[in-house]
Amino acid sequence: MTKNKRVVIAGMGFGGIRAARVLAGRGLDVVLVDRNNYHLFQPLLYQVATAGLEQESIAHSVRAMARSWSGTRFHLAEVAGVNFISHEIQTDNGLLPYDYLVIGAGSVTNFFGLESVKRHAFDLKELADAEILRNHILTAFERAVIEPDPARKRALMTFVIVGGGPTGVEFAGALIELVHFVLAKDYPDLNTGAARVVLVEATDKLLASMPEKLRTYTLKKLRSMSVEVLLNARVVDAGPERVVLHDGTVIPAHTLFWSAGVKAAALSDVLDAPHKAGGRIPVEPDLTLPGHPDVYVIGDMAYLEQDGAALPMIAPVAMQMGIYSGRAILSKERGTTLPPFCYHDKGSMATIGRNAAVASAFGMDFRGYLAWLVWLLLHLYYLIGFRNRIVVMLNWVWYYWFHERQVRLITKREGQSHE
Amino acid sequence: MTKNKRVVIAGMGFGGIRAARVLAGRGLDVVLVDRNNYHLFQPLLYQVATAGLEQESIAHSVRAMARSWSGTRFHLAEVAGVNFISHEIQTDNGLLPYDYLVIGAGSVTNFFGLESVKRHAFDLKELADAEILRNHILTAFERAVIEPDPARKRALMTFVIVGGGPTGVEFAGALIELVHFVLAKDYPDLNTGAARVVLVEATDKLLASMPEKLRTYTLKKLRSMSVEVLLNARVVDAGPERVVLHDGTVIPAHTLFWSAGVKAAALSDVLDAPHKAGGRIPVEPDLTLPGHPDVYVIGDMAYLEQDGAALPMIAPVAMQMGIYSGRAILSKERGTTLPPFCYHDKGSMATIGRNAAVASAFGMDFRGYLAWLVWLLLHLYYLIGFRNRIVVMLNWVWYYWFHERQVRLITKREGQSHE
Repeated sequence: MTKNKRVVIAGMGFGGIRAARVLAGRGLDVVLVDRNNYHLFQPLLYQVATAGLEQESIAHSVRAMARSWSGTRFHLAEVAGVNFISHEIQTDNGLLPYDYLVIGAGSVTNFFGLESVKRHAFDLKELADAEILRNHILTAFERAVIEPDPARKRALMTFVIVGGGPTGVEFAGALIELVHFVLAKDYPDLNTGAARVVLVEATDKLLASMPEKLRTYTLKKLRSMSVEVLLNARVVDAGPERVVLHDGTVIPAHTLFWSAGVKAAALSDVLDAPHKAGGRIPVEPDLTLPGHPDVYVIGDMAYLEQDGAALPMIAPVAMQMGIYSGRAILSKERGTTLPPFCYHDKGSMATIGRNAAVASAFGMDFRGYLAWLVWLLLHLYYLIGFRNRIVVMLNWVWYYWFHERQVRLITKREGQSHE
Repeated sequence: MTKNKRVVIAGMGFGGIRAARVLAGRGLDVVLVDRNNYHLFQPLLYQVATAGLEQESIAHSVRAMARSWSGTRFHLAEVAGVNFISHEIQTDNGLLPYDYLVIGAGSVTNFFGLESVKRHAFDLKELADAEILRNHILTAFERAVIEPDPARKRALMTFVIVGGGPTGVEFAGALIELVHFVLAKDYPDLNTGAARVVLVEATDKLLASMPEKLRTYTLKKLRSMSVEVLLNARVVDAGPERVVLHDGTVIPAHTLFWSAGVKAAALSDVLDAPHKAGGRIPVEPDLTLPGHPDVYVIGDMAYLEQDGAALPMIAPVAMQMGIYSGRAILSKERGTTLPPFCYHDKGSMATIGRNAAVASAFGMDFRGYLAWLVWLLLHLYYLIGFRNRIVVMLNWVWYYWFHERQVRLITKREGQSHE
């Protein structure tokens, strides 16, 4: 009996779990590797950070998924490197040999070398980030209510969000609604109307990938919700209580949130391959690493141009790459070859607030209530775990009916370590 | 216009929130103080620790509660001491003057001076404790699956629980069910049948306050679920991978859980009052601190004898004391006096596992399915927050139907700090 060939999938993000689904039950030994024991639904992190969802509801155990994927095993480990000669990956839990390797370690926040920003800004990439940011926001209001100095009180209630992409827009909208609908009632002694949410975008547009009509709607809608949108503005420096813009403007703000860029995960540095901007690794049209036809790089780490532009670092690209890499491996095992990877852009969307979203799909543009409904349904659909879907839907219904976000818990006091 | 008298309630546990409810809307200025911004439903911590519930579902924002309690305000602060002369409490967020003070700071785990146990044991008093313990249990299985040494593998799957009270019994039952029903399917490569749950009790009985018939049922039921129950046994020493009993027996175990005792919270040390065993403070029959008729001590911190025995440190006592203290203050304001506090024992209960609980109430004993149903309903009833009730019920139904506990996430790797 010949031993089954082994596929190692490094990273259980949007791409990795789809590759696993394709490869399961096809006579291969599939090893799933991640440093967390769960798949994280990153697009909803901002709702955890704004007290709308339990953190557990947007994560799903990899072992729970693997139960229905026959021939797969999970290995909890952080991948440190790849030995392409011996066909092994190095992890903090030992070596794992592979016949095929699928690498989808995702991305981390890119602060573009701004050290003071990196030190003082919050970001949303990991589950813990969302809890830390929620604790910070709620603690800021607790401090504001007892702060005697009016200027410091206002700074505690001022939130600067950098980056006008979907994350920045969604976070800004969710945050201002948290303040106006929920915290205003929680803090009757506090003038929450003085709270500021400032969205800073370096270019002249929000949601750059959207059609102009939707971009205009987004800008108007955010401003009508009293988000201060600053276009053509850049943050150049930050301290614990202030944010400095390119023109010298100082915004006294206790909270800086950074969603102005991502770069490939650190793993890309240790792969012996040339890098593009943001540490992304150029791949062949079949997503393999040049010179290594048994190694696939997918998702945010992969750099691939299509129609003259690099594919964006977004979940739909990762999902399609994950499926493709799985199918490509199955094809090779059958001795056939797939046509090159081709990304099908099904559209993009962002939610701004209650009953307000923008969506561009099927060659059509939606905005307002309908786009918002489509956004809700698609996010529920892509969320992994049936129970998670119910809990998330429950929270959304609750918020819709009662204007209540129940998870406004400060689970750790700032400066307090966890152990 | 005379200023309203101010009642400060220190501690938003079972007693504190009930005192607040009684005092709200009665023309008093009521200040609610807690170091957390939520009320914690401690009796379900063990279900968070065994991956059955989200941590957020057993906590509820004090500000959310205070919205419907008119005349109340919340003050997030840790109480450091009381100045009985100037009628002020000292907090890490400044001084708070009071006319009446209700102290219900609860209890902490009592390790009875066993330093090695204190260092290595887990306990369940705070919300973070439950998440830490869940992470530890799940990490132990992740380590067991890759551990080559059979003895260490078994130690990683061995859990020693100290204390045969309700917490110990409930945790033991929930843990062995987690292993047999859930983790057995998550870890097909691991012989989870070799996992050990050892319940160590110093006396000759479990659930000492229960009638003998129910104690016997509990013992039999736990043993039928393959929990190893050691009676008349004490833990005297512990290390990271072993637990030592009074007779020298060494149990190789990676996890030690301590629920063998509680003592009054540290605040009791700074109150200038004599202490009883466990740091509890003797109170007058009207729950006031001797010599301080405007200071009430309630819940686990209060020492009061009734029918020749000290009242137990349990939630129902705290709840009744909270209500009493509120009513006593209202009476004083009206110039009347309440009869002394009298605890009405409505019974006690503990759940052992699926369809199995014991309850002693209304002079009757229940066990098995009926007691289990009553346990579920009463816990849902006492849980604060309607949405929490729905989420908890959803999890219970899920577990009942599918034998699934979905929150088996390792949200922090061990040794990893949170910031």
